[in-house]
Parts: sequence; structure tokens; C-alpha cells
Amino acid sequence: LNEREIISLFSHSAGVDKTGLVKGIGDDCAALQIDRDRLWLVTMDTLVESIHFNTDWHPPDKLGRKSLAVNVSDIAAMGGSPLYVFLSLGLPQNFNPGWLEKFSRGLAEACLEYDCCLAGGDTVRSSEGIVITLTVIGEVAADQILYRNSARPGDEVWVSGTLGNAAAGLELCREGRKGGDNMSFFIESHLNPRPRLKLARRLAASGFVHAMMDLSDGLATDLAHLCEQSGVGAVIYSDLLPVKESLASTAKEMGKDFLQWVLSGGEDYELVFTAPDKHASDIATLAEKVGFLTKIGHIDEGGGVRLVKGPPGKQNIPQVDISFMGYDHFKS
Amino acid sequence: LNEREIISLFSHSAGVDKTGLVKGIGDDCAALQIDRDRLWLVTMDTLVESIHFNTDWHPPDKLGRKSLAVNVSDIAAMGGSPLYVFLSLGLPQNFNPGWLEKFSRGLAEACLEYDCCLAGGDTVRSSEGIVITLTVIGEVAADQILYRNSARPGDEVWVSGTLGNAAAGLELCREGRKGGDNMSFFIESHLNPRPRLKLARRLAASGFVHAMMDLSDGLATDLAHLCEQSGVGAVIYSDLLPVKESLASTAKEMGKDFLQWVLSGGEDYELVFTAPDKHASDIATLAEKVGFLTKIGHIDEGGGVRLVKGPPGKQNIPQVDISFMGYDHFKS
Repeated sequence: LNEREIISLFSHSAGVDKTGLVKGIGDDCAALQIDRDRLWLVTMDTLVESIHFNTDWHPPDKLGRKSLAVNVSDIAAMGGSPLYVFLSLGLPQNFNPGWLEKFSRGLAEACLEYDCCLAGGDTVRSSEGIVITLTVIGEVAADQILYRNSARPGDEVWVSGTLGNAAAGLELCREGRKGGDNMSFFIESHLNPRPRLKLARRLAASGFVHAMMDLSDGLATDLAHLCEQSGVGAVIYSDLLPVKESLASTAKEMGKDFLQWVLSGGEDYELVFTAPDKHASDIATLAEKVGFLTKIGHIDEGGGVRLVKGPPGKQNIPQVDISFMGYDHFKS
Repeated sequence: LNEREIISLFSHSAGVDKTGLVKGIGDDCAALQIDRDRLWLVTMDTLVESIHFNTDWHPPDKLGRKSLAVNVSDIAAMGGSPLYVFLSLGLPQNFNPGWLEKFSRGLAEACLEYDCCLAGGDTVRSSEGIVITLTVIGEVAADQILYRNSARPGDEVWVSGTLGNAAAGLELCREGRKGGDNMSFFIESHLNPRPRLKLARRLAASGFVHAMMDLSDGLATDLAHLCEQSGVGAVIYSDLLPVKESLASTAKEMGKDFLQWVLSGGEDYELVFTAPDKHASDIATLAEKVGFLTKIGHIDEGGGVRLVKGPPGKQNIPQVDISFMGYDHFKS
């Protein structure tokens, strides 16, 4: 079973229908009706030592921040703001109290930064390594919530920021590299990601956006989810993908493929969204105010995510299907 | 650091104040104001393979049921009913798909039984063993919610059901014992606990009860939490503790102390609550309708939980302080 098959197994055994459940399994968050005007968003993410992080190079305060950041990114992706945080922490028998103190300080700092509060949780012993699960509850106006399933043929596909930085940073950490400004930027992207909370709220409030989600498993997988749920396909152009200048040279130096990082690396915590082409200039204006946005392709009626290795408008470049080629915990 | 010290560390770093947070860290659930009349309750519990369960003897469907039951017990303990369930599941590299299918079926059955639905979660790879974290959101009427911190001197202390059964069951499983009716009852108490949801709601609606919580770490620890948070003490009588007839003989046969199981064994998922003595007969009437309730002692102004090894009313029996002598994940 791969990750999608596991999720599908649970989707088909979901218990009783609850009228307040506006969106269940299958988006960045579940959406629960609070009253006519408000929805609550609920997301849950687990970070496992040796799988998602390595205490050799991940400072505990930054891990505390990241534990919250990856959940806030899910709340942001549906247009919401975080309110309440719940932490379940599994600690091995002989954990380091100093590590725990720094982790809790990082988490507390991130709570302040994202304007939310730790409201409960659980503390247990793990059989091996640290296991961090956060549940975050957020809020969104009922008329601003954005789902994955609303992309339409003719939409343009946009992403925020630049892609592949965290994947490069992880590789640099694995190889024990530290020096250099560019390397520090990539490493920081891996250790301490910053979800696009403000930008996401502006996009949600704009009314331009049809579908949105955050990039956690890599564009190839995440955009494929968005397409699958919307019943559409996407064409994206490699020449349009927003990439930091030094990414290609860093990859080359390490004997890696930078496009692999960009498409499949995961942990970008950027936004991918679709909007009708008539709003392209509105989005460009918005981008100037709040952050870097790039048009990378368009939605059509075909299936899956197809990459054109080149610029748009050129003839005879084949489309390569890259759907779900991102990170999968259970891929063999 | 023990479990209480870890929780205290996080309690002091809880981020911004949120006006809707009626109760944060320190009770069975967090309580969030939804509107004037309603609160939502949020609880989170983690079960770790080899720490909380053993796949050698725990059938996956019963583990699926138990994963939800332990959370429903927290919702019940504050007088609420469960609504939405979120599951984060950590699975090792070579997990058994058949196990997963049975686990999900058990969880789905329990969702139907407790009238709630699986609404989201996360699936990740673990570094070793299965790790199950559930977050459950429930609802309670604002005028019926029951906290741990409201016991008053003069209250009587009550518990539901009988104590120590799950602890006996765990011990029987560890020793590979299966046969006999009594043994089956104890083993089932460990494998498949039934939270007192209906009883708890009746108690919450009655208006008689001052403070309530569920018994998960053993009476010695849980009642000590209730006393600490209420700023009171409790005296309980060993002769009053409700115990299944065959518990003592089973313990004796195994060379164990049955009182240890009753006070410190944990996983009873019964209710402990306090109510003024003038309501004793009302509670007895209620008990006849919905379940077995036993008065085990009273609240006073002293500190901690003190055990009298005998019946009430007898002179010259010393009080033994048993506060926090239950289960602690991090006790050295």
C-alpha cells in the first residue's frame, strides 16, 4: 500500500455523517461549520525522528518552530488563520531535558509569531526516537475558504516563492555541509520553513483564486492531488518554474539533478493555486505587495500533471507525465 | 523530568491568549467557546507499540476501537459527546496491510458506536513500530461542562464500575494466559475498554456533580490531579473500593497485589467524581438506572490522596498518602 491507498482505506470507513462536516478527508484541513459565517479548519501533522528530522543537525528550537509551521501552512492553504495548537510528544526513555526545553521554547515563539496558543495534548514514552504530532485548529470566513477541488480548465497555475530550496538544504545537511551564504539559505529553508500565512489570506480574500493548496510533498505530487480532486489536468513549463539562481550550481556541484529537487523534493511550504487568466494582472499587483508569485502553466481537461521541458509557446516539445512523482512515505 | 514536569514546561510557554479558550492545558480536554450555549472539547491521545500495546496479543480491530475509546473517555469526563475524529498513524517500513485493514475496521465500528466520524489526519512512516495518535473534538452544553478543579471539602468521592480489571488483563496477556471466564473479562477490559459516555452525560446533566475526570493512570494519580487542581485533599477507604470478586484471587494466584492494580494499574476508563453528600440518594437512584456507582470516600481540606486501609468510621487506622502513585511514562 502506498500513502494514497492508505488514506483511501480510511476514507471509506469514516463513521456517521455529521452535518457540520463541510470537508472531510482529502484536503489540507478538515472544515467544520461553526456558524453561518465561520468555519473551523483542523489539520494534523506528525514528524518522526530519523524520518522527518535528524537531531544531529536540526536544532531543537528550530524543530519546535517547524512542527508548528508545517501545520500553519495547511491552515493557510485553505485561507485560514491558526487559533489553537495541540501537541502529542513521544519521547524515548533517556531523552535530553535540555533538548525538550529548547524545543518547547521554539514552539512557544512560533505560537506567538502565528498568533495562536498551545491548548493541550499528550506526553508519552516512545519505543525509539522522538515523535511529534501537532493538531492545529484554525478559522476561516465561510465565503473565503479555498479548496483543492475547484480548479477549472482555462485557469492559470501559480506558485509562491522559489522551489527546491528545502530539498537542497536537506541534502546539504546530510552531507554535513554548512559554509557559504547560498548554502545557509537552503539549509535554513529545510530547518525553519516559513509558511505563507499572510499571502494566503490575501489570496483567499481577493476572490480571484479558484483552488489552492500548500506544497509539502513536492509540486509533482501536490499539483496532481489538486488536479485529481478538481477532475482536471495541468501543463507546467520547466522554464517557468521559479528557482533560486544558485540552486542549479549547488545541485551540479553535488552531482544532483536540481529539477528533481524542484518537482519532487518536498517541504517547500509554498502555495500553489489556480486562477482565471483574466485576473493575471490583479495577481501580479498583489504579488508586488505581499510576495513573489510566478505563473508556471495552466489547467486543461487532460489528466494528471504534464511537464513541458522548455518555455510555453514552442512547438514539438513532448509533455512528460510527472503526477505523484513527489515524496511518498510508503513507496517501495 | 517526570510526566507532570514535562506538561508544566509546556504550560508555561503557551503562546498568545485567546479569548475563546475557556480551559487549556490541565484537564481531560481543552474547552473552546463556540457560542454562548456551546463549548467544543478537544483531546489528544497517543498509543505507542511496545509501550501501550503489543501486537502479539492485541487484535488490530480491538486496538482500533481502543484508540478511539480512550479519547471518547476524555470527552465523556467533561460531560460531552464526541463529534469529529482525526487520526495520525505512524507505520513502520514493512507494515502488514491486513493489520491495517482490520485496525481501520475497528476504528470505523467505534466511530459508529460513539456517533462520531473520522474527518482527517496524517499517515507517516515511523522509525520503529506503530504509533497511533487520535485527536477527538466533542461538544458539551456550556452549563453542563464538568472540570477537575471544582471539588469542595465536604463532597463525597464516587467512582463508576470496578477498578483494576484492565491492569489484571494486561498482566494476564503478558503471561500468555487466556482461559477461564474471569480471565476473559479482565483481558477484554484491557483490550477493548468501554468509556462511560452515557453515564457521564447523565451525571453532567444532573447538576449534582462538582468535579469529574476519567481514570486512565490509576485512581492514586488521577484523583491526586483532581485534588491538586481543586486545592483540596481526599480520603478514600480500601474497604469501599469497588472490585470484581475474582480480582483478589486472580492476583493471589499470580503472586501480585490486587490493591496495586486497583489504585495504580491504570486504564480503567471509569469515572471519578465528587458531589455534595446531600445528593447521595439522588446519585444512588441514577446509578440504578445507568450503571454501577460506588462512594469511596470524601473530600477534605487536607492535601493529597490519603488511603485508609479499612472501612470508614473505625478509629486508629493510619492514613497513607498515595498521591501520584499511578502510572507515569517517565518515572525512573
